[in-house]
Amino acid sequence: MPVVEVLRLGHRLERDKRISTHVALTARALGAKKIIFTVEDESVKKSVEKIVNTWGGDFKFEVVKNWKKYIKDFKERGIVIHLTMYGANVNEYMPKIRDEFKDKDILVIIGAEKVPKEVYELADYNISIGNQPHSEVAALAIFLDRLFEGRTLYNDYKNAKIKIIPSKDKKIVIRENNEN
Amino acid sequence: MPVVEVLRLGHRLERDKRISTHVALTARALGAKKIIFTVEDESVKKSVEKIVNTWGGDFKFEVVKNWKKYIKDFKERGIVIHLTMYGANVNEYMPKIRDEFKDKDILVIIGAEKVPKEVYELADYNISIGNQPHSEVAALAIFLDRLFEGRTLYNDYKNAKIKIIPSKDKKIVIRENNEN
Repeated sequence: MPVVEVLRLGHRLERDKRISTHVALTARALGAKKIIFTVEDESVKKSVEKIVNTWGGDFKFEVVKNWKKYIKDFKERGIVIHLTMYGANVNEYMPKIRDEFKDKDILVIIGAEKVPKEVYELADYNISIGNQPHSEVAALAIFLDRLFEGRTLYNDYKNAKIKIIPSKDKKIVIRENNEN
Repeated sequence: MPVVEVLRLGHRLERDKRISTHVALTARALGAKKIIFTVEDESVKKSVEKIVNTWGGDFKFEVVKNWKKYIKDFKERGIVIHLTMYGANVNEYMPKIRDEFKDKDILVIIGAEKVPKEVYELADYNISIGNQPHSEVAALAIFLDRLFEGRTLYNDYKNAKIKIIPSKDKKIVIRENNEN
């Protein structure tokens, strides 16, 4: 089964701490297998590890300084999709991308700030989730939700210490030790 | 045409500044007509107003201290949907919600932190975008994208000073004064 990885380009310490954490957790919850940052931030790493430890699964966290090499290497085994408000409309390209995803991995790139021109050129697709300014968290979420057509909302995470049973009117939480 | 409003419950100054801004911009870009905060934050307000001023449209920004009254009043004219990781799966409820949206406005509630029990009771639907911890920005984005079935990605905003023409390989920006 092909997998999705997410590359977060850039990260401004302090300013981006929480947004980057939201990016990582969204990647995990919507079905990506790995988040790659280009800047070290111990607090983001810890937040993500804490979630994985409690909620299960094998979501990977990586820091890669040479992101150009990472992208180029990735292209040997999959397609690279850069999410940008300048890109082609996701509505039109999603069927084609979903088709390619049948046998190719996907690397989704989202920027924290202005993205170098080279990224536009390296990407197989520059895709917009609308052409209005909003949020890279929102863009990533919608892209993954559409790619997986809602299936990843049922993911079961191995070794979870805590699970939620969906309910329309109350909180139902199952803990490993049955404390609650 | 029924409209969507978004109520952001709670907001921790500094800590939530950027997340709350992303929430507001996501609401606007995905088709909501108004964001309502329960806490004043001048910097969030300014960021949103700047976007509306440049990118057009009539997205409203409001601060409401008595949110319980706001929710109760809203229920006279529409339905209230609380997005929470404990809620019923959006996959199952979206068809019904879309059907109600034909003639009723929708108020989407998302919390910044732990949400009072009363919200679960006031809401007509408590809906989860998956039952894993991720991001209220992601949850809101996916909810609106599904509600409007991608149509809002084509929204045209009146009085925009700047517009982007979607493109798969380059940045095409149109400015009011044709400077670029």
